Amino acid sequence: MSKQILILAGDGIGPEIMSAAEHVLNVVNEKFNLGLSWEHGLLGGCAIDAHGVPLPDVTLDAARKADAVLLGAVGGPKWDTIERSIRPERGLLKIRSELNLFANLRPAILYPQLADASSLKPEIVAGLDILIVRELTGGIYFGQPRGIRTLENGEKQGYNTDVYSESEIKRIAKVAFELAGLRGGKVCSVDKANVLEVTELWKQTVTDLAASEYPNIQLSHMYVDNAAMQLVRAPKQFDVIVTGNLFGDILSDEAAMLTGSIGMLPSASLDESGKGMYEPCHGSAPDIAGKGIANPLATILSVAMMLRYTFREETAAKAIEDAVGKVLDQDLRTGDIMSEGMTQVGTQAMGEAVVKAL
Amino acid sequence: MSKQILILAGDGIGPEIMSAAEHVLNVVNEKFNLGLSWEHGLLGGCAIDAHGVPLPDVTLDAARKADAVLLGAVGGPKWDTIERSIRPERGLLKIRSELNLFANLRPAILYPQLADASSLKPEIVAGLDILIVRELTGGIYFGQPRGIRTLENGEKQGYNTDVYSESEIKRIAKVAFELAGLRGGKVCSVDKANVLEVTELWKQTVTDLAASEYPNIQLSHMYVDNAAMQLVRAPKQFDVIVTGNLFGDILSDEAAMLTGSIGMLPSASLDESGKGMYEPCHGSAPDIAGKGIANPLATILSVAMMLRYTFREETAAKAIEDAVGKVLDQDLRTGDIMSEGMTQVGTQAMGEAVVKAL
Ligand SMILES: CC(C)[C@H](C(=O)O)[C@@H](O)C(=O)O
Ligand SMILES: CC(C)[C@H](C(=O)O)[C@@H](O)C(=O)O
Repeated sequence: MSKQILILAGDGIGPEIMSAAEHVLNVVNEKFNLGLSWEHGLLGGCAIDAHGVPLPDVTLDAARKADAVLLGAVGGPKWDTIERSIRPERGLLKIRSELNLFANLRPAILYPQLADASSLKPEIVAGLDILIVRELTGGIYFGQPRGIRTLENGEKQGYNTDVYSESEIKRIAKVAFELAGLRGGKVCSVDKANVLEVTELWKQTVTDLAASEYPNIQLSHMYVDNAAMQLVRAPKQFDVIVTGNLFGDILSDEAAMLTGSIGMLPSASLDESGKGMYEPCHGSAPDIAGKGIANPLATILSVAMMLRYTFREETAAKAIEDAVGKVLDQDLRTGDIMSEGMTQVGTQAMGEAVVKAL
Repeated sequence: MSKQILILAGDGIGPEIMSAAEHVLNVVNEKFNLGLSWEHGLLGGCAIDAHGVPLPDVTLDAARKADAVLLGAVGGPKWDTIERSIRPERGLLKIRSELNLFANLRPAILYPQLADASSLKPEIVAGLDILIVRELTGGIYFGQPRGIRTLENGEKQGYNTDVYSESEIKRIAKVAFELAGLRGGKVCSVDKANVLEVTELWKQTVTDLAASEYPNIQLSHMYVDNAAMQLVRAPKQFDVIVTGNLFGDILSDEAAMLTGSIGMLPSASLDESGKGMYEPCHGSAPDIAGKGIANPLATILSVAMMLRYTFREETAAKAIEDAVGKVLDQDLRTGDIMSEGMTQVGTQAMGEAVVKAL
């Protein structure tokens, strides 16, 4: 069985955090005898610089052959003004789509050691553990027709199409129901069915699937505006949230920020067979790139997710997560999660502390 | 000059909160010699019960003739299962569209007396005063084509169209810039221009308008996912936020909830001439309807907004707002904003306290 990983460090702080994560990967690979091997490729701004496009064919080919992709972060001001069809984000959207990574899992977990970092009151967020399941290859992100046209009266008009078919909705809902079964058993499906037909079909399809195949899952529905409110008011009411591409983009970032420590949150984007791309929830943070101060823990935890979901190595995954817990217990903090009385460390030192704790 | 108001109490707690607000309206009308008169009409569930549709022609005609509409809240479980084309929300969407109420102003203000009600830490939200300017008659809410169709393979597909023209974007941006000029002088335009062409045109149009007509306004741009995060992380960075219909729906509810006291927040929906519909940000709260415990302050503050924006009666508007401040200082609280040591009162008593404070 092949166990090949493609590592795409990307831009900004990407290379730094990936180097720390690779160190951890190396150590678990040996310690648990996982038999993983990996190579490196270019995605995003660095790929534009080298090949003129954010997702070169050589990267896409390597990604197709690999069993999992480990991604740092892409983008930065350097590429913000180039022609939009070849901006770094386009590479990200294209690799998601080409690899059919339709299921984006974004956990929002508050580490007890970091409860203070949240802008919310401790009693509101203590113990927070939400999983957002976002549809990632459909909806308004990819819908046709789209563009900017000139109307007869000479003014411009921009348009996009939000579109979902039953089969697309079913396969993402299935992921949410299955994962909820391994957790709290509750799924909240988020839509705007009182206004948008596309989400009316979403709601109906999710409801039907639950009734026929997941009678033991407790399914609820919420309008997206209310969900944005409830996440602020009482986030612990949620277990698994399932929603479309755009609402998932917005709500998963809101949920991540509830923890106050987005530098701690990994994510997974999976296809139907369990192949996946794993990446931190945070961005490429160009403002602190190259300074060696970025938090590598989200990337390290992305390695753990990769071991769990693609390679089914639960023991090794758990070992990484426990090691991260240990370094937090040792009061080690990068700048983004620093608080009084803790010991501030840089990217590399944090990575090494995790390795040591393993 | 005609000064005619149409009052639409609506459903759920609507009639109770409106009765308290009408009492206040009566008193300021006399006290400040405003010369306002009003009549009542039906919108939402109560209109469905009486006329079979959520926005009967008689209501729409009366609304067209009036200078301002004062709305309670619409909807409830009783009408949740009827044919969707005549649900209560449809009445709301139709009256917005028919009256051309394109500019929705939603303030998120934290009253110092209620700082505790927020789920956020006091230092994050103390003094919060954001104004969200949401486009209300365009975008994906009204875009064509839309619907649910059956594909050749037999499965259903839902679709909606997000669409904005330059003129629609300009007129809402203008409102935001003008209002920012009366406040902190800052506008943050929220889009998803890295993915959606319709918001790429939005961003470009807002940028051009600012450069040519509002050089003194400090304009910034933010992606919607980041805005959802920043509202949680550091909401006080915002002054005026301007955005499209759907993003505005989500972000204004999120921002309102930051205050923890959505029962305090009014809103205005204006056309090009200053005619407007005024309503509380909260819904019809069917669970507490008829109990006399709902908070009437958002509706009372909607009266103040109406006096300010449509009738240009700043003194009377300010008097109402000051009176609301006074009752809070008197430690009077409805259940939704109750906290230890305060005196809990019902809807009617709260309304009367405001009248007395006037
Ligand atoms: C960079 C952008 C295209 C992307 C998205 O909107 O999906 C990002 O916000 C994310 O959530 O991964
Ligand atoms: C009831 C619904 C149609 C409405 C909207 O989405 O505009 C409401 O959420 C609002 O924000 O006023």
